[in-house]
Amino acid sequence: MAMSKKRLLIVGGVAGGASCAARARRMSEEAEIILFERGPFVSFANCGLPYHVGGVIPEEGSLLVATPELLQNRFKIQVRLRHNVEGIDRAKHEISVRNLETGEVSREHYDVLVLSPGAAPFIPNVSGNNLPGIFVVRSIQDSRDILSFMAKNNPQKAVVAGGGFIGLEMAENLHHKGLSVTMVEMLPQLMPPLDPEMAVFLQDHLASHGVTLFLGERVMGFAQKPEGGIAVALGTGRALDADMVVLAVGVRPESGLAAEAGLLPGENGGILVDAYMRTSDPDIFAVGDAVQVRGRLFDDARLVALAGPANLQGRIAADTIMSPENERPGFSGSLGTFVCGVMGMTVAGTGECEKSLKRLGAVYEKIYCHPYHHATYYPGAASMTLKLLFSPEDGRILGAQAVGGPGVDKRMDVISMAIQKNGTVFDLESAQLCYAPQFGSAKDPVNIAGMVAANTVRGLVRLVRWEDIGSTQALVLDVRTPVERAMGHVPGSLHIPLDSLRDRLHELPRDREIWAYCAAGQRSYYAVRILAQHGFMVRNLSGGYAMYRAFSRRAA
Amino acid sequence: MAMSKKRLLIVGGVAGGASCAARARRMSEEAEIILFERGPFVSFANCGLPYHVGGVIPEEGSLLVATPELLQNRFKIQVRLRHNVEGIDRAKHEISVRNLETGEVSREHYDVLVLSPGAAPFIPNVSGNNLPGIFVVRSIQDSRDILSFMAKNNPQKAVVAGGGFIGLEMAENLHHKGLSVTMVEMLPQLMPPLDPEMAVFLQDHLASHGVTLFLGERVMGFAQKPEGGIAVALGTGRALDADMVVLAVGVRPESGLAAEAGLLPGENGGILVDAYMRTSDPDIFAVGDAVQVRGRLFDDARLVALAGPANLQGRIAADTIMSPENERPGFSGSLGTFVCGVMGMTVAGTGECEKSLKRLGAVYEKIYCHPYHHATYYPGAASMTLKLLFSPEDGRILGAQAVGGPGVDKRMDVISMAIQKNGTVFDLESAQLCYAPQFGSAKDPVNIAGMVAANTVRGLVRLVRWEDIGSTQALVLDVRTPVERAMGHVPGSLHIPLDSLRDRLHELPRDREIWAYCAAGQRSYYAVRILAQHGFMVRNLSGGYAMYRAFSRRAA
Repeated sequence: MAMSKKRLLIVGGVAGGASCAARARRMSEEAEIILFERGPFVSFANCGLPYHVGGVIPEEGSLLVATPELLQNRFKIQVRLRHNVEGIDRAKHEISVRNLETGEVSREHYDVLVLSPGAAPFIPNVSGNNLPGIFVVRSIQDSRDILSFMAKNNPQKAVVAGGGFIGLEMAENLHHKGLSVTMVEMLPQLMPPLDPEMAVFLQDHLASHGVTLFLGERVMGFAQKPEGGIAVALGTGRALDADMVVLAVGVRPESGLAAEAGLLPGENGGILVDAYMRTSDPDIFAVGDAVQVRGRLFDDARLVALAGPANLQGRIAADTIMSPENERPGFSGSLGTFVCGVMGMTVAGTGECEKSLKRLGAVYEKIYCHPYHHATYYPGAASMTLKLLFSPEDGRILGAQAVGGPGVDKRMDVISMAIQKNGTVFDLESAQLCYAPQFGSAKDPVNIAGMVAANTVRGLVRLVRWEDIGSTQALVLDVRTPVERAMGHVPGSLHIPLDSLRDRLHELPRDREIWAYCAAGQRSYYAVRILAQHGFMVRNLSGGYAMYRAFSRRAA
Repeated sequence: MAMSKKRLLIVGGVAGGASCAARARRMSEEAEIILFERGPFVSFANCGLPYHVGGVIPEEGSLLVATPELLQNRFKIQVRLRHNVEGIDRAKHEISVRNLETGEVSREHYDVLVLSPGAAPFIPNVSGNNLPGIFVVRSIQDSRDILSFMAKNNPQKAVVAGGGFIGLEMAENLHHKGLSVTMVEMLPQLMPPLDPEMAVFLQDHLASHGVTLFLGERVMGFAQKPEGGIAVALGTGRALDADMVVLAVGVRPESGLAAEAGLLPGENGGILVDAYMRTSDPDIFAVGDAVQVRGRLFDDARLVALAGPANLQGRIAADTIMSPENERPGFSGSLGTFVCGVMGMTVAGTGECEKSLKRLGAVYEKIYCHPYHHATYYPGAASMTLKLLFSPEDGRILGAQAVGGPGVDKRMDVISMAIQKNGTVFDLESAQLCYAPQFGSAKDPVNIAGMVAANTVRGLVRLVRWEDIGSTQALVLDVRTPVERAMGHVPGSLHIPLDSLRDRLHELPRDREIWAYCAAGQRSYYAVRILAQHGFMVRNLSGGYAMYRAFSRRAA
C-alpha cells in the first residue's frame, strides 16, 4: 500500500475537488491531502445561488455544504482558503501558490495533483461591461454583491443576458422578488439544450408571466444613464432600460493553469482527460466543468457544466489515484441530463437533442406526445410535451426532452437510465413503472412515448414532420372534432372527424399522399391505421396541432 | 392478410380486455371484434374507486375511461354489456353467453378468444360476511353501494380488513371523510410487497394519523349488533365495533371459466399462458389479473394484479393474434413495480423484496440509506428510506423499496428501468439524472444507493445486519454525536463520535469484531474506512439507528 502515502494536492474546493478529497481520504488514511481554494469557501452549493438571491433560500449559510473544520476533523483534509494556485512545475512536481491574504507565494510538492478549477462566467467584451449594477452569478460573493445592490438601490427593472440555466433561474428569482424582467438571448430560442420547437413552450410560459424576451438579440454595450440605471444596447439598435443586469451568457473552462503547464487541451478548450480523469501528465488529474468529456452516445468532445458529473469524476479520480487495485469503471461519457424549473414549468432532457443529432450527422426519427403526468381521472393531472429521438433502424433511444409541470423530471430520469443501458423504444414501451392514480397512469408517459415510437419502428405508421408542412403536395387531413377545428386549423386541410372517417373514405384521394393530424397525434394515428389498411398512402403528423403551433412559432 | 378477417371475442371489458380490443382493431380493420362484459360498464378506472368513495374524485363519470359508443364509433368494437360468458366449447369454437338482462343464453362462434376476467375480491368464509354495511371494492356498483350506505347511515367507525393496496387506499379515503379507521391485517405487517422493517415506517405513519392497527390478526366473523353497527370478532378474541366494514383481504383470479373449459392452470391457480399470452389452447389467449405470469428475475410463477401489465398484455395478445407477421417481444416477466400513497406518505418498490429472495433461495446483499428527495439546502427537502437488494458477487440489482414523501416513485421507476436492463449497482452509482436543487441532488438518492452498494461489492466495507445485533459478540460502536446518543442508543454500545475516532483508536479492541453505526449509515461507513485501514476487524450496520429502531419494532 505504498500508494496510500501519497501527497495529494487538489486545486479547487467546490463539487469535483471536494468530492475527490473526501473520497481520497476514505481510500487512504495515510495520504496527505491538501485542498487549495481561491475563494473564501469550500464545497458551497453554487446551484443554489439564484434561489438565495430570490429569497427562496433565505440563509446564505444553507449554501455552505461543508466547512474547512468539518473537512479537517472528519477527513483530515487540510483546506487552504484564499490560496490561488498560479503555476505547475511538472518536472519538479511542485505547484506555486499565492496566499491572497498576504500576497506570499510558496511552493508545494505533490505526488499527484488534481485540478478542479471549474468554469468562469463569460463576460462579453463590450463597453461598460463592468458598470455598477452588472453582475455574474458564480460565487457566494456574487450573491452578496447582488443582494447588497438590491437592498441599496431597490431596482425595478432587470435585464438578464443569456437564456440558459442560470439566466432562467435568475429570471425566475428576480421576478419572484417583484422585478420586471427582460431576457436577451443571442440564439433564437431559450434553453439551448432544448430543440427550438420545444423551447416555444418555455418561451410562451415566461411571456405569460410577464417576462419580456428578446431572442436572436445580442448585447452590444452598457452605459450609465445620467438619471441613474443602465442603458443596454442591443445588436438591432434597440436600447433597454435596466436598474440591474445579470450576465449569464455561458461559461468558459478555467483551463489556463493547465495550459500554461503544457497539459494537452481538448479540441474545444477543455482540459484533455481520459475516462479515469487523467490528463496528458500521468500525475495530474482534472475533473469537473474545466475538462473535456466525451458524449455517451457518439463519443463527441464536449464541455459539460453540471454538478452530478463533477462529483462522479472527483470520485473516479480519487479511486484511480488512491486505490488502483480496486477496479472501477471510468467516466462512461456524458448523457447531458438536465432539468430546469422556471415559474412552475419544468423543462428537462437527456441524451442528444435533434440539433446535436443533425450536427453529428446521425440518422434519427422523432415522435412527440402530450401525456398527462398522472391519471386524468385523478384531480390535478398536468400534461407535458415529450419528444423522443431514436434510431429508425433498431429503435435505440438517442435522446428525449420534455416540457410541462410535475413529473417531467421523473420521465427524463427513467429515459436517462434506459439510454445508459443502451435501451430501445421497445424497452420504454414495456417498462413497468409505478402506477397509482396520483403518481402515473397504467400507460405511463414513458410507455406512451415508447409505444408511439415502437409503432413507427415496426412500420405500423409512417411519420412526417411538421417542418415540411409548408412545402408538401400532400392532402393534409384534420381528423379532430368540429369544435376543435373551429379553434384553429392548418390552412387548406380537409376536415373529416375520426369517428366518421370509415364512412367517408370515398372523399379521399388514392393517388396522392395524405398527411393526417389531430390535436396530439393519437387520433391521427388511429386514422392512419384505418386508411393504410384501406390502401391509402397515408402518414401521421407526429404531435398534432400542438406541434404545428410550436413549429409555426419556433426560431427560424 | 387472411388473418385479419378473424372473429375475435373478448371476455371482460376492463384494462386488459379493452386494451386488447382497441389494439386489435388498429391491427385489423377487417376483423369482427366483440367485447363481452358482465357488468354495466366497460373500461372503467377501478384504481380510482377508493378516491371516488373518499370524494377526492367527486364525479363517478370521471372513472368511465371509454364508453361503448366510443368503442363502437372509433374502433368498430361491438360491446355487449351485462353479458356473462358461461362456457367455452373449444371443439366447436363457441362460447355460450347469458344476457343478464333477459336471462337469454346464446352461442357465439370465435376464431380467437381472449379471456380478461380479472380477479375477484376474496371473501373470507366467516359468519356474517354478507351483513349490510360490509363491502368490497371492485366495481362501480361497489362504490355506489358504499356511498349510498354512508349517505344513509353516516358511519363514524370503519374497520378495513386487509392492509394491501386497496385496504390502505380505503383507509386513507375513509379517514379523509372523517371516519375513525381501524385496520386488521392477518400478516404481521401492512403492505405485503414491502419487507417488514420497511413497513414499520408506514405503520408509524398511519398510527400518527390516528389509524388503529391490528397486525397479525384475523377476522373471524361479523355480527349485527342490536343497537346498530357490526361487531367484528378477531382471532385473538378481541371484538371491534364498526359502523361499516371494507373487506380487502386479497383477490383471486377468476379462472373458473378457463378451468371448466379444460385450459391448463398455472401452479398457483392463474390461467397458464406463454409470453405471448396464449393459453394451452392455441386459439384462446388470456391477459390481466387472471393469468399466471413469470417473475422477471427468477422466472418464478406468480399472480399480479396491476393495471400496467394488464394493458401491456392486452396489446401483446392483440398483436400476436392480428399481426403475427409483425414481430414484437412477448411479456418479459413481472417486475412487480408498485406504488401506494397513504396520507402523504409514498411507499413503492420494484423487483424482489427480501422476503421473496429468501423464499427463492437467492444469494443477496442489502443496504439501506436515507437520502433527501432534493437538495437539503432548498426548502422542503423530505427524506426517504431506501432499501436496495443486489447480488454480492456482481452487483446485479435484485430489488428496491422506498418509503417517504415526494420523489419516492421517481427513484423506484429509475431502478425499475435499471433492473429491466439487467443493471448493476454500478449503473446506479454512475447514473446521470436530472439535478437542480428543487428536483434532486448532485448525488441523487439513486446514486447514493448505488454508491453504498458499490462500496460493498468492491469490498471497501463489510456489512452486518441489524437483525443480528441481539446475538452478536462484537463490540457495537456508536459514532454519532453526544446529542444524538442522548436521544437513544443501542444498549451496551461504545460511544466514540466519528470526528474524534482517529484520536481514540487505543480504546478499541483488536481481537474482537467491531460493528459501527451512526444515524443513517454514512458516518459509520467513514468510521469503517478509518478502522479497517488501521487494521481493525470492522463492519458497518447498514442504515444506522433509524433501521435499528425499525428492526426492533418490526413483525417477528
